[in-house]
Amino acid sequence: MASPATGVQPADATRITPSRAERWPTRIVIQYPWPSVDDGRYAAKRCVGDHVRVEADVFRDGHEMLRVVVRYRGPGGGAWHESEMRLIDEHMGGVRWGGGFDVDRTGRFEYTVDAWTDVFGTWRDELDRKLGAGQHDLAGELSEGTLLLRDALAREPSDVDRGLIEQALLTLEDPTLAEGAKHDVALGPELLEAVERTQERHGRVSLESPVPIEVDRLRARFGAWYELFPRSWGGLAGVEKRLPELAEHGFDVVYLAPIHPIGHTNRKGRDNALVAGPEDPGSPWAIGDETGGHDAVSPDLGTIDDLRSLTSAAAEHGIDIALDFAIQASADHPWLTEHPEWFHRRPDGTLKYAENPPKRYQDIYSVNWESPDWRGLWDALLKIVLQWVDCGVKVFRVDNPHTKPFAFWAWLIEQVHAHHRDVVFLAEAFTRRAVMRHLAKIGFSQSYTYFTWKNSRYELTEYVSELAYSGEQEYFRPNFFANTPDILHEYLQHGGRPAFEARLVLAATLSPSYGIYSGFENIERVALRESSEEYLHSEKYEIKKRELNGELLPMIKRLNFIRRDNPPLQHFSNITFLDTANDALIAYAKQSARSTVLTVVNIDPYQPQAGLATVPASLGLPPSFTAHDILADERYQWRIGPNYVEFEPGVRQAHVIRVES
Amino acid sequence: MASPATGVQPADATRITPSRAERWPTRIVIQYPWPSVDDGRYAAKRCVGDHVRVEADVFRDGHEMLRVVVRYRGPGGGAWHESEMRLIDEHMGGVRWGGGFDVDRTGRFEYTVDAWTDVFGTWRDELDRKLGAGQHDLAGELSEGTLLLRDALAREPSDVDRGLIEQALLTLEDPTLAEGAKHDVALGPELLEAVERTQERHGRVSLESPVPIEVDRLRARFGAWYELFPRSWGGLAGVEKRLPELAEHGFDVVYLAPIHPIGHTNRKGRDNALVAGPEDPGSPWAIGDETGGHDAVSPDLGTIDDLRSLTSAAAEHGIDIALDFAIQASADHPWLTEHPEWFHRRPDGTLKYAENPPKRYQDIYSVNWESPDWRGLWDALLKIVLQWVDCGVKVFRVDNPHTKPFAFWAWLIEQVHAHHRDVVFLAEAFTRRAVMRHLAKIGFSQSYTYFTWKNSRYELTEYVSELAYSGEQEYFRPNFFANTPDILHEYLQHGGRPAFEARLVLAATLSPSYGIYSGFENIERVALRESSEEYLHSEKYEIKKRELNGELLPMIKRLNFIRRDNPPLQHFSNITFLDTANDALIAYAKQSARSTVLTVVNIDPYQPQAGLATVPASLGLPPSFTAHDILADERYQWRIGPNYVEFEPGVRQAHVIRVES
Repeated sequence: MASPATGVQPADATRITPSRAERWPTRIVIQYPWPSVDDGRYAAKRCVGDHVRVEADVFRDGHEMLRVVVRYRGPGGGAWHESEMRLIDEHMGGVRWGGGFDVDRTGRFEYTVDAWTDVFGTWRDELDRKLGAGQHDLAGELSEGTLLLRDALAREPSDVDRGLIEQALLTLEDPTLAEGAKHDVALGPELLEAVERTQERHGRVSLESPVPIEVDRLRARFGAWYELFPRSWGGLAGVEKRLPELAEHGFDVVYLAPIHPIGHTNRKGRDNALVAGPEDPGSPWAIGDETGGHDAVSPDLGTIDDLRSLTSAAAEHGIDIALDFAIQASADHPWLTEHPEWFHRRPDGTLKYAENPPKRYQDIYSVNWESPDWRGLWDALLKIVLQWVDCGVKVFRVDNPHTKPFAFWAWLIEQVHAHHRDVVFLAEAFTRRAVMRHLAKIGFSQSYTYFTWKNSRYELTEYVSELAYSGEQEYFRPNFFANTPDILHEYLQHGGRPAFEARLVLAATLSPSYGIYSGFENIERVALRESSEEYLHSEKYEIKKRELNGELLPMIKRLNFIRRDNPPLQHFSNITFLDTANDALIAYAKQSARSTVLTVVNIDPYQPQAGLATVPASLGLPPSFTAHDILADERYQWRIGPNYVEFEPGVRQAHVIRVES
Repeated sequence: MASPATGVQPADATRITPSRAERWPTRIVIQYPWPSVDDGRYAAKRCVGDHVRVEADVFRDGHEMLRVVVRYRGPGGGAWHESEMRLIDEHMGGVRWGGGFDVDRTGRFEYTVDAWTDVFGTWRDELDRKLGAGQHDLAGELSEGTLLLRDALAREPSDVDRGLIEQALLTLEDPTLAEGAKHDVALGPELLEAVERTQERHGRVSLESPVPIEVDRLRARFGAWYELFPRSWGGLAGVEKRLPELAEHGFDVVYLAPIHPIGHTNRKGRDNALVAGPEDPGSPWAIGDETGGHDAVSPDLGTIDDLRSLTSAAAEHGIDIALDFAIQASADHPWLTEHPEWFHRRPDGTLKYAENPPKRYQDIYSVNWESPDWRGLWDALLKIVLQWVDCGVKVFRVDNPHTKPFAFWAWLIEQVHAHHRDVVFLAEAFTRRAVMRHLAKIGFSQSYTYFTWKNSRYELTEYVSELAYSGEQEYFRPNFFANTPDILHEYLQHGGRPAFEARLVLAATLSPSYGIYSGFENIERVALRESSEEYLHSEKYEIKKRELNGELLPMIKRLNFIRRDNPPLQHFSNITFLDTANDALIAYAKQSARSTVLTVVNIDPYQPQAGLATVPASLGLPPSFTAHDILADERYQWRIGPNYVEFEPGVRQAHVIRVES
């Protein structure tokens, strides 16, 4: 069957260019591959060990059958592999095909989809349908089949396949045999497989461009974060001393507020006072003094060697040390004299401190990204990050990335990843959703979220559903912090320990990455004033004496190990919200291939609440099952349908249930 | 303010390529332009006279203000025009901008979106916010402002603007004036406008590629079709004689079943009999005999000159004559001898007739699109279409396009449109939705739909909502046929005249393009047999004696003129379904800028039905209004909220109401 459409062709020759249509009358369309972010402009994200499920619309004109494979390759442009895709909505006469592949290392994978017309399969299918319809004079059809078999032989099948095909030909061409016997041979499934293995890929097309998938290490998706100010723990050496305890409580990341020298000009005092007292240490985010800037460690906290020692000890505990990366300078930062062109100035030559009217940040200066020496600034910032990476820091919490150019972040992250693909970047961007999404698209591994402000059942359900299923789950990885040095929500201020328990369970079970800022475990909850989310005597402006001794620690530890032991809690977009018949109760199932975790939380920190956690049949659980509350280590008998639950603040705030069958 | 980011840059320098990020640190992202089909791969469709509403996400890092315009140009690559876009979700802290432009002629328009940082506007806004916060020492701010004004003067403003700016500078730089007076001048709205007019487009970016919009003549979207077999009307001359009557009834398109010679080999007899009697005329879709093929007119119907005469007379009535374009040949078609390579053959050399097992079409042969001479075939088909266009045919109803290569259609339609942009192509594709959508993307002006099989309130609501709002409305234009020679739905077979009335009103008011096949107006409804959708004594296989005398004609005429007089009925995606408190009743509003039509149909052809047509406040109608039933010419007083309606089959089947206020 001569054809002008053999060989690999770009998919969808029906695109607007007439010249292409004239040259390549391919008949197959491949469209809407998934995962794919903005039509392949950005990479979808996965982690090492994931199975990447791939889908695409594939169809052609007419009634011919198709074969479809996903082809993929790993970082560095090695060999392509392929795996079969199958029609997944056949009962709808559909066009959606599904398949996939595993990713086993970090870096940029890519995949494409190939499709071709299954000439022999189509012939066989038509023969089958004709026989089914009672047609008998099919000598013409059989003669077509023999041609296809001879074509297959010409394509050098394996010895086994050759044997099968030659045997079939002998039967089909034997004039002494009855047609019935020939039909049986022609329809044989083994013959089909043998021919398909040799089959030319008739009119094969591929996606226009391969689709990128960025594969990170697991920490980019899954981890329990603990944020602390080293100066309240005896500096870097003090933190290192606490590592065994932190590890014992199941923390995966210890995130340090900035460790650099702090400016003294316009230093902020206690409770953000405009004038600091002589003993006030200043905000760690007012970075730099005469002794050094972003590349220095404050002598009050230790030395660069202390940091090396800390990261190395942490690694032995499986803990990542995360540094804060805040691109701003105090008035005393060496850059202001060494690179004055990197900062904004008034026409009279005076420097402009940071402000977002009416807010003013008199102790810090923003850099001028549009300075003539912007390349010099970019290079200096990259050098700083690489210096800390060299000290063993593989996680950066980036301060307000949304006020710096997107292009800078895209470049910086790519440069760092080129040599250190295991570095994780957390975006601290509380801004418009589109901007937060864009930071994720251009490379940030994960992001802060609005979780802190989502406290009602409705708010949580809507927000988590959007994060999980709106499409952004392909590239935007949430990190649910229950509190931060800047955010003490009024729910925590007023709700006391039951509120802290509820938020802790929600953060730890809704999101594979979650975090607390130290003091949370001690139920610290006094705000600067009513309707403020700032802490009274905020650690941002003074030194605390911190120990790991909070009353919530046993629950935190339990949750952290539950998270490690239960794969459903290590993913985000595997959630189903359940009815509870009570708006004060939120319930959800998270499922992985072989495991289900059901969480029910009483959001009301004041009152006992009861309701019905309603397990839908769609979860695929047995009609009745043992509900093992792994938080309290109790067992109940649950079933598909409503299950009575009750909670009393101070006694029990939540169930975290593993389904046992 | 020196900047490396001036001049027009491609949007979104944060795409993956690091080299681009290094060269162009643009700070603005433009994404998700709308309308746009598959990321600009295909053109969105509009009609002459439409306003093209354009939206896009536009944002940048930081807090600076943006200016955004849509730029557009018409067919042939003429000059670009531009029009302002505005932030449309500002209250959400959003990023979505909206604007638009009008299209005044057929052909390919394109648009792009430009955005830049509003340097002066940002400065003014910050000054305003600082003053609002009670800050007073703003001499530094004012000195920045004077710099911006001097920059504006350097960009050669108009005389009026120059005067305004110079006056402002005088005030700002006058050391004798109080700051308050300076602030007033700096914040003046006329100064803002003057500076903005001169403003450099700081860091301007555009969409990566312009987005195509194909503009058709109105008939591509809006028209009442009447399908007939010319042989039942006395041939082409007979049809021409009926044109005044057809026009008087408000038909816009008269679609003729194929007019070519009909083969005699394996000709089908009455009621699709395998053997034709000597008098049987055969199916017009078995195209071609020894006297000619697709380029010939059957001598039984007339001549090519008769067709010219028909199209020319029709044009005088504002009617389009539509031809059927069915790419298949009877055994007697000249191509089978002139171009045997265009057809499928068995290994023994015999021709293969068309079949889709178990169905067999013994009287027709499909062409082999993969023949070595596929280019010759394509050229021949184009020549045929162009011949009929030359005869005044500007509408083609294309038979089963989904069994022919997409690339062929893309090419054919583009070739025809290159010289005859007013030609309309209707796809008769009853197949998978993705395939139907793809035919629309690659150029078909409109398409048959599943309307015929959507009879319940739920089915209609779901199907019409999907057509109207799933996204495909940007390129897929439905044509709702109430019946066809192949489809006599059992709802019509059993429901009698009330069923015909219901389906007629639904087709004519739901879809701007709708059609009936002749006989509908006579309530023809006898099927070949129970559970068949074929007509008994189908006109496909025999000649009828037709006259325009059906009992439904007055209602059809009324509806056709209602459609012409009421703009809401000339669009598809302007529908809101209303509650009726009765599943036998379907109600919907269609709205245009200044007009609302409310339709209520009793879907039950057997029983009286009553319900409440509930007008939601969101339609923006007055609390109480005159509901003018323009089908019955009666007036009611309706209101926002529920309105009682009742219907009795045989008396009234529907309301079509124009809202008068």
